[in-house]
Amino acid sequence: MREDIQSLIEQMTLEEKAGLCSGLDFWHTKGIGRLGIPSLMLTDGPHGLRKQSSSPDHLGLSDSVPATCFPSAAGLANSWDRGLIERIGQALGTECRAEDVSILLGPGANIKRSPLCGRNFEYFSEDPYLSSEMAAHHIMGVQSQGVGASLKHLAANNQEHRRMTVDAVVDERTLREIYLASFEGAVKKAQPWTIMCAYNRLNGEYCSEHDRLLSGILRREWGYEGFVVSDWGAVNDRVKGLSAGMELEMPANDGKGDLSIIRAVRSGELPEAVLDQAVLRLLTVILKAASPPGPAPLFDKEAHHLLARQAAAESMVLLKNEEGILPLRREGSIAVIGELAVKPRYQGGGSSHIRPTRLDDIYEELKRTAGESCELMYAQGYHLHTDDPDPLLLDEAVKAAASSDVAVLFAGLPDRYESEGYDRTHLNIPCNQVRLIETLSQVQPNLVVVLTNGAPVEMPWIANVKGVLEAYLGGQGLGGAIADLLFGEVNPSGKLAETFPMRLENNPSHLNFPGEGDRAEYKEGLFVGYRYYDAMKIEPLFPFGYGLSYTSFDYTGIKLDKSEMEDTDTVQVRVSVRNSGSRTGKEIIQLYVRDRESRVTRPDKELKGFAKVKLRPGEEQTVTFTLGKRAFAYYSVDLKDWHVETGEFDILIGMSSRDIVLSERLVVRSAVAVNRIVTRNTALADVLDQPGAEPLIRELLQASPFAAIEAKDEASADMLAAFVKYMPLRSLTAFGSSITEDRLERLLLVLNGSNSESQDKEN
Amino acid sequence: MREDIQSLIEQMTLEEKAGLCSGLDFWHTKGIGRLGIPSLMLTDGPHGLRKQSSSPDHLGLSDSVPATCFPSAAGLANSWDRGLIERIGQALGTECRAEDVSILLGPGANIKRSPLCGRNFEYFSEDPYLSSEMAAHHIMGVQSQGVGASLKHLAANNQEHRRMTVDAVVDERTLREIYLASFEGAVKKAQPWTIMCAYNRLNGEYCSEHDRLLSGILRREWGYEGFVVSDWGAVNDRVKGLSAGMELEMPANDGKGDLSIIRAVRSGELPEAVLDQAVLRLLTVILKAASPPGPAPLFDKEAHHLLARQAAAESMVLLKNEEGILPLRREGSIAVIGELAVKPRYQGGGSSHIRPTRLDDIYEELKRTAGESCELMYAQGYHLHTDDPDPLLLDEAVKAAASSDVAVLFAGLPDRYESEGYDRTHLNIPCNQVRLIETLSQVQPNLVVVLTNGAPVEMPWIANVKGVLEAYLGGQGLGGAIADLLFGEVNPSGKLAETFPMRLENNPSHLNFPGEGDRAEYKEGLFVGYRYYDAMKIEPLFPFGYGLSYTSFDYTGIKLDKSEMEDTDTVQVRVSVRNSGSRTGKEIIQLYVRDRESRVTRPDKELKGFAKVKLRPGEEQTVTFTLGKRAFAYYSVDLKDWHVETGEFDILIGMSSRDIVLSERLVVRSAVAVNRIVTRNTALADVLDQPGAEPLIRELLQASPFAAIEAKDEASADMLAAFVKYMPLRSLTAFGSSITEDRLERLLLVLNGSNSESQDKEN
Repeated sequence: MREDIQSLIEQMTLEEKAGLCSGLDFWHTKGIGRLGIPSLMLTDGPHGLRKQSSSPDHLGLSDSVPATCFPSAAGLANSWDRGLIERIGQALGTECRAEDVSILLGPGANIKRSPLCGRNFEYFSEDPYLSSEMAAHHIMGVQSQGVGASLKHLAANNQEHRRMTVDAVVDERTLREIYLASFEGAVKKAQPWTIMCAYNRLNGEYCSEHDRLLSGILRREWGYEGFVVSDWGAVNDRVKGLSAGMELEMPANDGKGDLSIIRAVRSGELPEAVLDQAVLRLLTVILKAASPPGPAPLFDKEAHHLLARQAAAESMVLLKNEEGILPLRREGSIAVIGELAVKPRYQGGGSSHIRPTRLDDIYEELKRTAGESCELMYAQGYHLHTDDPDPLLLDEAVKAAASSDVAVLFAGLPDRYESEGYDRTHLNIPCNQVRLIETLSQVQPNLVVVLTNGAPVEMPWIANVKGVLEAYLGGQGLGGAIADLLFGEVNPSGKLAETFPMRLENNPSHLNFPGEGDRAEYKEGLFVGYRYYDAMKIEPLFPFGYGLSYTSFDYTGIKLDKSEMEDTDTVQVRVSVRNSGSRTGKEIIQLYVRDRESRVTRPDKELKGFAKVKLRPGEEQTVTFTLGKRAFAYYSVDLKDWHVETGEFDILIGMSSRDIVLSERLVVRSAVAVNRIVTRNTALADVLDQPGAEPLIRELLQASPFAAIEAKDEASADMLAAFVKYMPLRSLTAFGSSITEDRLERLLLVLNGSNSESQDKEN
Repeated sequence: MREDIQSLIEQMTLEEKAGLCSGLDFWHTKGIGRLGIPSLMLTDGPHGLRKQSSSPDHLGLSDSVPATCFPSAAGLANSWDRGLIERIGQALGTECRAEDVSILLGPGANIKRSPLCGRNFEYFSEDPYLSSEMAAHHIMGVQSQGVGASLKHLAANNQEHRRMTVDAVVDERTLREIYLASFEGAVKKAQPWTIMCAYNRLNGEYCSEHDRLLSGILRREWGYEGFVVSDWGAVNDRVKGLSAGMELEMPANDGKGDLSIIRAVRSGELPEAVLDQAVLRLLTVILKAASPPGPAPLFDKEAHHLLARQAAAESMVLLKNEEGILPLRREGSIAVIGELAVKPRYQGGGSSHIRPTRLDDIYEELKRTAGESCELMYAQGYHLHTDDPDPLLLDEAVKAAASSDVAVLFAGLPDRYESEGYDRTHLNIPCNQVRLIETLSQVQPNLVVVLTNGAPVEMPWIANVKGVLEAYLGGQGLGGAIADLLFGEVNPSGKLAETFPMRLENNPSHLNFPGEGDRAEYKEGLFVGYRYYDAMKIEPLFPFGYGLSYTSFDYTGIKLDKSEMEDTDTVQVRVSVRNSGSRTGKEIIQLYVRDRESRVTRPDKELKGFAKVKLRPGEEQTVTFTLGKRAFAYYSVDLKDWHVETGEFDILIGMSSRDIVLSERLVVRSAVAVNRIVTRNTALADVLDQPGAEPLIRELLQASPFAAIEAKDEASADMLAAFVKYMPLRSLTAFGSSITEDRLERLLLVLNGSNSESQDKEN
């Protein structure tokens, strides 16, 4: 293959090569007929196909062909189900093949830095491990069908506000451990055919021309083999972008980019080899896409709809269930209230907005599932298009609720509240909905709220309701899924992939989101999501990893296959879980790692493994996790590598990030010897643990003025000890000390390992 | 004078000049007999004189001559009393003159970034305005006696941990608005004869050799006229330090520094003019100190003790007074419990630790003030030297408390808990004291806790007690002051100069204190103290500016002399306050300013004025505040200057930072026209408000592909609007636009004010 491509490149003119580096139009790459190079179609995703025929746009404004609308990523991630998301990927791939689409844009692996980001519904999680696992399996599914995925948006595109100009200022360690880690795992595991670079700048450079990001880290460090495509309109300097490793400019731009590449090659500014390299990467994917495995299949709309419904049920999270209000009984009367029950919000706004093959009517699905012996009535309750309460609708809803045994209220965020393109500024649902909840709770104690929204909301009203089901944006099968969950056809098993804060001000980036002008400083650093709530001991409304079930699970044991290991080795963790309730159900078992002591700042704990098991009542199962170096490592900016600090770690097993049920201790030893350079300004404390250092320093201390100082009490002794421990080596020559600078220099030579040399001098 | 000094310098040898730049010994500068240049003594302060005779040290370990011990700065700041602190400064100056001390080291104007900093007791506040006002009046008092002060520690010395090597990483705006502002006000108002540079690094450079800090900002921007002295042992590179503007190295260091200066001058590395400049600055102060106004006075120990007692009473803050438990009645029986009642903690550990002329015994003072008809008994309750509870002491205390009408419990931090040299790691008082409080509260509901500590503590027990008096570290007169306050001889008037957090994790620097290794990043930025609690809406245990009185005050009116102004003008704010209770009392009136809307991040409100008034029952007084540009300005990093953004401001009058009782609005207009440079990556939103920009951009927009896109609903319209508003100008040429790069270039020229040129091109 590679030889063929090499020969193709040799036959291409400069103009053809440059032309291949930008689109033919809004959605296609350029074909070159005389060389048999086909034109590919790329289409928006990620939770369904947005294949536009006419009036193309990148904001999801114009119509597209019908496609199955799966739950959006924010929902899917709550399933913590690698297999499920892979099956969805396969379904998406099949639909692409049927529509002759070669690349499906997505999934999005950006981290939910703030709950306010308008596009959070398209992203998986606040946790990089969970996010990267979900993204990897989405990609694997899509690509198994001979269709390419496009992992997006690399990197730090964590807000919509000013996304095309904002500079995300992120320190290296945070970037590696949080924002890039989410991409890294997916790239290494799933090798997406393409990666989409972000609009924004990262530490001063546009991502579309960020050499260290696109070549240094993505290609050289992670071994990425595909090509990079610009987010639509993300190109700033086309030549710089190409040099940095951004191969495909999208959409077509009137030949402007091609022309600048041609000029740059002609002037010698851009080596032609760089262009050839880009063309090689493009052709590799184009030719792979051009020879898919087998003929294009027809896709089974009904089967895909059922998959969408199943996925929706796995994506929803039961947040509250007081007095066993849920599952609902299929008898008596139920008031179904809220316009969202009949005009469901099932996907987000923007480039991912698709036209579903069909769409569940929630109310109809509830009726169907409830059956004949249960009486349902509907009241609108509020208008979705405004926040103003409507007294007539309120009255009607009160009557319906008061005259029923149970009221199920559909609330959430209208389209206008969250979308690609802008961020939220608060976490409220519309006040007419809040008013409705509060009013109904006064007439109907058996009140259940079903929320449809793409990201967390505040719930000041939660004490007034008995049940809350968080449905996220559930795709076209949400109605059936909600009915299944409410009536217990399906046992809820979703767990939150993000923290729900008690209030806006509690969220980690509150002081720095969305930044000042074109600058967003990630000052919260590593402390994103639960890492922050843990460190600040802030009680969230609902913690990361939380979700209820209609059954209960007992965690019966944890076992490690070793208690000590080198970081080049792996450890196996076995955990047993039993369904102690009376219904079949699924449980998501979460494994967190805590570094018990460290020289560097570390989060209290970090997710390093998860598994989902299905258990019949009484059934027990043992799951095994394998942890390697990365589970214990932090990114060392000094070493420019992942590094484990030798010491004790806790392996924590949780039902949520705040409900740790089992733990074991493990000693991990680093295989890397770290040589620290000692200078005159190194604190004594940082030198004393080096081999052989202590006697040398003690000797100098004895000769220094500090030896003569006597502490008169315990407090003074503490102070003196702290002073000496943390004074720099140069202080040995200060305070009138008779120790000379030369003698200090000799000590430094010895401590830095130039032993012999310095001893020669000494003699 | 200056001519004389010039001629002296000309007569000095290179060795003499270099020699003047370091100490003779631990506490003296070098004299040059043949030229009549005297040797000066510098001595630790700031709340009393630490003149050591033998065994000198900089950690307060060896003995010193007796001197009046005033309350430490953390206490004094609660007085918000400029006159009081100036009188204390005068008293300190008098004692210096009596002891032939020329420079009294202090005050400390470092900001309380974290409540954990071990040396917070020596600093005034978390607020730069209050801190700088206190520092200025301390300096003015000392220097009025012909004695120099030494404002310390410049700059960002906000922790003890690794203070000699740590690098404080602080962004420029935060540095200017918070950490430097605290020094700036004091320098400009009081011109301290000397300033002490900090041990630590600031943004990579040691403060002792920080040219931009010591010369650029301190001298050129602020107009500082004195000399800079190193903190004891803070010198790293002596020659670099001298060049940067650090004139005096202390203590003497065996001639090492002098020699390196001499060598550097001889080798040409250091221009001799730089050395001459340093000598000029040193001699200016030395000669001023050598001719004090009049002969050295004797100081009146008794009068100074009374001043110390009065100051202590003004420094203490009544935090809780349920059911009017305080003031205590002079009848019945009172149990006085706690070893701190007889071994009072009245000053902090470290360089400021002095030997008092006398020391109040709290218990004795209480007995004296309580009088004959009141029975007092004492029980030790706990041991100060350990945290372990002693069951016998506990029993004894329970008996005493149970058999009395009221129990007054003395609690707080032992010396070993807080000191110069190391930081606290938690905010607890010893657990044996907590145990005691909880135990006593079960037998005696009339329980009052008096706290002696240099910085905030958590009070998980506070609901169990009726009264809390925060005495801070009250100096040698604390016993009398506590007695005066508890029995109502003096009406409490202190208000907190710092926030008391509910718990450690609530404090602004929690995630970044004391930093990682030798790096402390000030990631909380501007949000220090109440600025953080306000922004995060965290309820503090007690807010900044809070304090109770035995009387009550009504705020009866606020009046501004104008409703609009240019920022070159000033506004007068008049506020009337009435004593609505039945006791004479003092009230601290606080003025905060809020910028109602801003392009840059701003705290919710900032202290910009305060006044203290004494009112008899029923008496009313009007105070006037004058606010100029600085009260409304932020530090613009772009403009490198203080800048007011034209707009509306709220003038808020508060009894505390959380109890705003009056407010008025004011429009302030900037006199500075800000020219922003427009680039291809400037967002449309940032250009549209420029004069003449809108029609030009509208025209291009009409010619762009965006004109053709139609939104199908409100949500889509919002998204499209946000997209266009925040897209960079370059996007006008993208998405297949027919607008050329040349046309964009011409637009940029016009927008950047090169009107004619671009129009020429256009024609």
